[in-house]
Amino acid sequence: MKLREIGEFGLIERVAKRAGGGGEGVVVGGGDDAAVFKPSRGSLTVATTDALIEKVHFDLSKASFRSVGRKALCSNISDCVSMGARPRHFLVTIALPSRVSVAQVDELYDGMLSLARKYRISLAGGDTVSSPGPIVISITLLGEVKKKNLMLRSGARPGDLICVTGKLGDPRFGLGRYPRVREALSIAESRLATSMIDNSDGLARCLIEICRMSRVGARVDVSRIPLASTLDLALYGGEDYELVFTVPGSRLKKLPKKCAVIGEITRISGGIKLIYDSGREKNIKSGGYQHFDDQ
Amino acid sequence: MKLREIGEFGLIERVAKRAGGGGEGVVVGGGDDAAVFKPSRGSLTVATTDALIEKVHFDLSKASFRSVGRKALCSNISDCVSMGARPRHFLVTIALPSRVSVAQVDELYDGMLSLARKYRISLAGGDTVSSPGPIVISITLLGEVKKKNLMLRSGARPGDLICVTGKLGDPRFGLGRYPRVREALSIAESRLATSMIDNSDGLARCLIEICRMSRVGARVDVSRIPLASTLDLALYGGEDYELVFTVPGSRLKKLPKKCAVIGEITRISGGIKLIYDSGREKNIKSGGYQHFDDQ
Repeated sequence: MKLREIGEFGLIERVAKRAGGGGEGVVVGGGDDAAVFKPSRGSLTVATTDALIEKVHFDLSKASFRSVGRKALCSNISDCVSMGARPRHFLVTIALPSRVSVAQVDELYDGMLSLARKYRISLAGGDTVSSPGPIVISITLLGEVKKKNLMLRSGARPGDLICVTGKLGDPRFGLGRYPRVREALSIAESRLATSMIDNSDGLARCLIEICRMSRVGARVDVSRIPLASTLDLALYGGEDYELVFTVPGSRLKKLPKKCAVIGEITRISGGIKLIYDSGREKNIKSGGYQHFDDQ
Repeated sequence: MKLREIGEFGLIERVAKRAGGGGEGVVVGGGDDAAVFKPSRGSLTVATTDALIEKVHFDLSKASFRSVGRKALCSNISDCVSMGARPRHFLVTIALPSRVSVAQVDELYDGMLSLARKYRISLAGGDTVSSPGPIVISITLLGEVKKKNLMLRSGARPGDLICVTGKLGDPRFGLGRYPRVREALSIAESRLATSMIDNSDGLARCLIEICRMSRVGARVDVSRIPLASTLDLALYGGEDYELVFTVPGSRLKKLPKKCAVIGEITRISGGIKLIYDSGREKNIKSGGYQHFDDQ
């Protein structure tokens, strides 16, 4: 079935039906000018937005509609939980060209909604428009966090150990991976870490961001980085939704299993350094995927 | 200057500088995985999202980058205030093809940010990506409303009068128009109306939505519709950010100036009818712009 056969409003109704009811805390879901929620008392609201553009972030000759839908929400969940926040509601803006069928849109939403159900996140609204070019999926996710559990990039201190969950450098670029929801919330709510970030642009970018925001330096022992593929992909690519976080030595015994210590935070004057087995040191200055590099 | 000369991270820094500080209620602005706000005690959070796609919603041979930026935020503000909510923070996802220059991106953000400053809304975050095709601007706006001031589409009752602000059928399709922020908040906070909606897809669609959600009918006196251009554009197009709302007869004396009464809410069995001067009646069944119609 073609999109024009059901039209914009037909598609919106169809998605609303698949999404089910409003969910916890939703006062008004779809069907009005905006979604309305009741924030939990004493919590801060966390808002993250992340878009996928066809031919830039995914290629439908290699990925299914379902996996693309899942990845679109996954990257937002990962950003939310790496702040220590519990994800609650999301809004989806989707731009669709005429070549996409209703069944393919269903698959795309199924990918999102299966992940949303797993983590009890409700689809609260969105905007559905036509596209003269690529498919565009832009999601905004709202979450909640108690102030004491808020995890920022700016809290790392010299002497803290640099830790990661899982393996870095996903050769599938996030397709088929799950975000580290349980791990991130456990790290935040047990107040284990001093800073946390999700690894969506590669470890090099994570280190640069933590060091820039915390005004510190870092030394990473290359041989201790757990690799899912190549060192290059771990450092400069990946989108693997793993967490990079810093832990004071005194709390290290609380480090969850499956986490690895890969280095140490230093003073800012130390710069950001990779230490190889041979003893060679390399400065990380920049790197990681940047949009517009290839333009 | 080309986008690749400053790169994604350079562009993000540039926008952050133009946007200034975080603004009221912002705990953490750009620069972390997500934005963090402190919700006002006792308020509900309202979230709306609306996207503009080049060649679908705007044409840069006819509109400036500045006016496109302004329109992108304008439509979100209009959705927010028509719920009775005060707009507070917004997030911008923008996909840019290589032909766009840094100066043009500056203009686009200037259009948004001048409107944001006017209404004291803060840019809290976003996502900046490359596009292989059209420019895409997707904005999510968060606002706040006390429960008693929340204006839904579902509150209209038989006997209520149907009112509109200003003139309908903007021939400029929203470019160069401002949303009715002061009027919407005054209508909501004085508890004048029983339902409210913004007129972004034409009056016909507004009536259909209010009648569907309120389970009522409507009779509109065509000669009383204030026109900015043609009746057809007023009914089925326009994007003029005017408000359509319903008011019980007993509160009509509180109706602000510049508002017009154009008809009356009836029982659902009455259907949705346009009454012409000649006495001819026409049923509104559908209509208004729908995406995918032209695919």
